[in-house]
Amino acid sequence: MGRVTARRPILHIQDGRYTRRPDTLAAEEPLEIRVGGRPLTVTMRTPGHDFDLAAGFLVSEGVVWAADQVTRIWYCAGATADGGNTYNVVDVALAPGVAAPDTSLQRNFYTTSSCGLCGKASLEAVRTAAKWSVADDPLSIAPFVLTSLPGRLRAAQRVFDSTGGLHAAGLFTADGELLGLREDVGRHNAVDKVVGHALRSGLLPLRQTILMVSGRASFELVQKALMAGIPMLAAVSAPSSLAVDLAVENGLTLVGFLRGSSMNVYTGSRRLQPQPVG
Amino acid sequence: MGRVTARRPILHIQDGRYTRRPDTLAAEEPLEIRVGGRPLTVTMRTPGHDFDLAAGFLVSEGVVWAADQVTRIWYCAGATADGGNTYNVVDVALAPGVAAPDTSLQRNFYTTSSCGLCGKASLEAVRTAAKWSVADDPLSIAPFVLTSLPGRLRAAQRVFDSTGGLHAAGLFTADGELLGLREDVGRHNAVDKVVGHALRSGLLPLRQTILMVSGRASFELVQKALMAGIPMLAAVSAPSSLAVDLAVENGLTLVGFLRGSSMNVYTGSRRLQPQPVG
Repeated sequence: MGRVTARRPILHIQDGRYTRRPDTLAAEEPLEIRVGGRPLTVTMRTPGHDFDLAAGFLVSEGVVWAADQVTRIWYCAGATADGGNTYNVVDVALAPGVAAPDTSLQRNFYTTSSCGLCGKASLEAVRTAAKWSVADDPLSIAPFVLTSLPGRLRAAQRVFDSTGGLHAAGLFTADGELLGLREDVGRHNAVDKVVGHALRSGLLPLRQTILMVSGRASFELVQKALMAGIPMLAAVSAPSSLAVDLAVENGLTLVGFLRGSSMNVYTGSRRLQPQPVG
Repeated sequence: MGRVTARRPILHIQDGRYTRRPDTLAAEEPLEIRVGGRPLTVTMRTPGHDFDLAAGFLVSEGVVWAADQVTRIWYCAGATADGGNTYNVVDVALAPGVAAPDTSLQRNFYTTSSCGLCGKASLEAVRTAAKWSVADDPLSIAPFVLTSLPGRLRAAQRVFDSTGGLHAAGLFTADGELLGLREDVGRHNAVDKVVGHALRSGLLPLRQTILMVSGRASFELVQKALMAGIPMLAAVSAPSSLAVDLAVENGLTLVGFLRGSSMNVYTGSRRLQPQPVG
């Protein structure tokens, strides 16, 4: 589709000197995800791997968790005047017996609990929706392998260096082997694409893997890791309080500020080898 | 409310050495925004300035654009077992005659056009919804003022240095004077808080101002600037293709990679003084 990047003319200013030149940008386009023909959500994403994105979104929302629950994914014909396909609408057909998502689903994750709307309710909602637990996942990883992941992720990123505008999400083994990488203007989309590809390959739950993201670790990203059965999330930047709380609650190992030879382990340090003392 | 940051124990690892110490995190909690008692959306945000956030969200969505269109904003009592208030649900009362938003509003911005779902449709939807044009805004600014903004924003940020986990949005005059600053785990929330505060102060449209953000410039952030009547958006990092297209379409000046003494001007360079030659 050739739309991962786009070229635009810019005016570059350096120390008051003006230069006109072309620049490469990360492409951003809306994607509407439908299930059984019914619109479910619209996300602004970088075109490419859209079927993975749709599948991963449905994993994150607890709709599917096995490859055979998705019968088919395809681009709907758009409603352009000439009948052309915009490649910005995908439809997912679920297998017989798989419950279609409620279209008010985005809110359900946060408001179906009994204690009003609070962080605790959000944690409970994820625990209820998850199809498996990562608490007993035997993943064990050495700090020197973890500190190698940002470099491996960057080396594998094809688009970042040309635009500076894309988030990356990579899935790694405990030996630091890259299993999958996706880039997107939205970091939640990059993760959904990685998870969706794994779902479609029949790999869920993703036991003994590490999800590495180029930015910060929010509640939403921990949620996505849990829904995919990933026992460890590592981020280049800071986690939020609720991301840490959700990781603690579910036994996920959360690492932040993974830069150079250092990192912060917010919870689940039992998965580090050698073990910390005390 | 004292919930802008939260303390958690961590394991810090540096060159294989393990140290246990407390760490300060950016707080993240869900906020449900209601209008006239009806739930409209839930966003994960950093607590604080929640009334600004609710008001700014409604500006971004085209529901309100003047202070007197909002009668009252308050925290609803939560549904906790003991009847306590979680301070995570706000309700907005609109003035008589102000149309309440459609609850499927999030999608309307992208899908109400005639050309299927595509970038062009998204651009047209924003143009239709905007209450004013920034195209003829006479803002004029010197590059040396622009390059001073990231430092001014950072200097004014109270929380960032302690957590590394918050996005900042600041509103500046052409002289570089800071009119308002908000921080949040979500960059869209930081912008909504700045815009909402301006709305409630009777300052919309925000003519001859510059909105500066600490991260990237997405379609959504350009949209928010336009809906608030802001003629210039400056970002520390990269814009997306659709952000540039939306800025071009509406005559907004978009600056990216504003770092040190350099920047990229993606469109609207007529607002820079001195003028670029040719």
